[in-house]
Amino acid sequence: MSLKTPRTTIRRLPKRGHYDRETLHAVLDAGFLCHLGIVVDGQPYVIPTAFGRDGDVLYLHGSAVSRTLKHAAQGVPVCLTVTHLDGLVLARSGFHSSMNYRSAVVLGTAAPVAGEEKVHALAVISDHILRGRWAEIRGPSRKELNATAVLRLPIEEASVKIRTGPPADDEEDYALPVWAGVLPLTLTPGKPVPDDRLPADTPVPVYMKRKRSR
Amino acid sequence: MSLKTPRTTIRRLPKRGHYDRETLHAVLDAGFLCHLGIVVDGQPYVIPTAFGRDGDVLYLHGSAVSRTLKHAAQGVPVCLTVTHLDGLVLARSGFHSSMNYRSAVVLGTAAPVAGEEKVHALAVISDHILRGRWAEIRGPSRKELNATAVLRLPIEEASVKIRTGPPADDEEDYALPVWAGVLPLTLTPGKPVPDDRLPADTPVPVYMKRKRSR
Repeated sequence: MSLKTPRTTIRRLPKRGHYDRETLHAVLDAGFLCHLGIVVDGQPYVIPTAFGRDGDVLYLHGSAVSRTLKHAAQGVPVCLTVTHLDGLVLARSGFHSSMNYRSAVVLGTAAPVAGEEKVHALAVISDHILRGRWAEIRGPSRKELNATAVLRLPIEEASVKIRTGPPADDEEDYALPVWAGVLPLTLTPGKPVPDDRLPADTPVPVYMKRKRSR
Repeated sequence: MSLKTPRTTIRRLPKRGHYDRETLHAVLDAGFLCHLGIVVDGQPYVIPTAFGRDGDVLYLHGSAVSRTLKHAAQGVPVCLTVTHLDGLVLARSGFHSSMNYRSAVVLGTAAPVAGEEKVHALAVISDHILRGRWAEIRGPSRKELNATAVLRLPIEEASVKIRTGPPADDEEDYALPVWAGVLPLTLTPGKPVPDDRLPADTPVPVYMKRKRSR
């Protein structure tokens, strides 16, 4: 089933649009931070938050007292957007300057998750961020589960937009004496900073050394 | 004037909230990609796009045929969010695991920009991304200006949320034999990739070598 609907069809530069699940999953899985859009009294709110993916379901979590999550849990329309900024595209004119990026936009309706699926969802989100860590850390207590809200958002309507490659300048602009090309950008992990109370001989887990695009 | 209103007051972990223009400007200026939220027929849409700041005004631009921009230009409520992901906060439990980040949320109403201010806005956006480049590249033609939509969003209502530092674990969890601390993350520029038609002796401009957090 295609994820393309009139609402998710990319009309501007349609060649950049993708609607297949494989491409969508790849963009979603390359990140763990999304921007969640909700509407309250006609006002849109866009909130950064972590997410996880299990097949064709996205999970979100947050404090049970979070206004955003409480609102989103009421079965209202939401938009979940994931963006990877891959570089600045520096053309010889402002008009053709651009960015290289991969972005996924998922439209849908979220619903609260309870019971067994709630713990599963938290594991999915944790492993989406850092695969392998969930098995090592302390699992959630009943009190913590009660203080946490988890939402599920089925992937049914979505689009992906991708731009790659060099600038495309107007023919006469190639003669201009200005540098042009791409400045690549990558979200890069630094040296892990152990907390003050960590015993000095605690090894850094292998899952922290894995390369990931974001 | 404070940017704090009932709609922008951070209730969950209020110590992370900031409402002064100095802090807001610093978070906005550390990035050039925002997520713009608009509402169409009750459905929120969250779209990544470039922005620039000139004092207490934010500028956005895009194709004149962009649905998002055309809609936002109608004087409807929008939300502009800028997020910097600074690190993973790896606690000894899932519950206390978190992220270090700086995020700015601006609520307001955008209006289309024309004439002189339009060119000024494009310069502001360009220099917000890469200060110094606008002066070097070809300026916009009349045709290009007509094909470009520019919006202005005055900063009147906003909040900033910032988390820094190590995890804060439950006292009894410090005994667990698991690595804990922070994995810093930074958006890092790579080696500039000149386009195929650039003369080999074209120097890389100094403004591309400046350090920026994002």
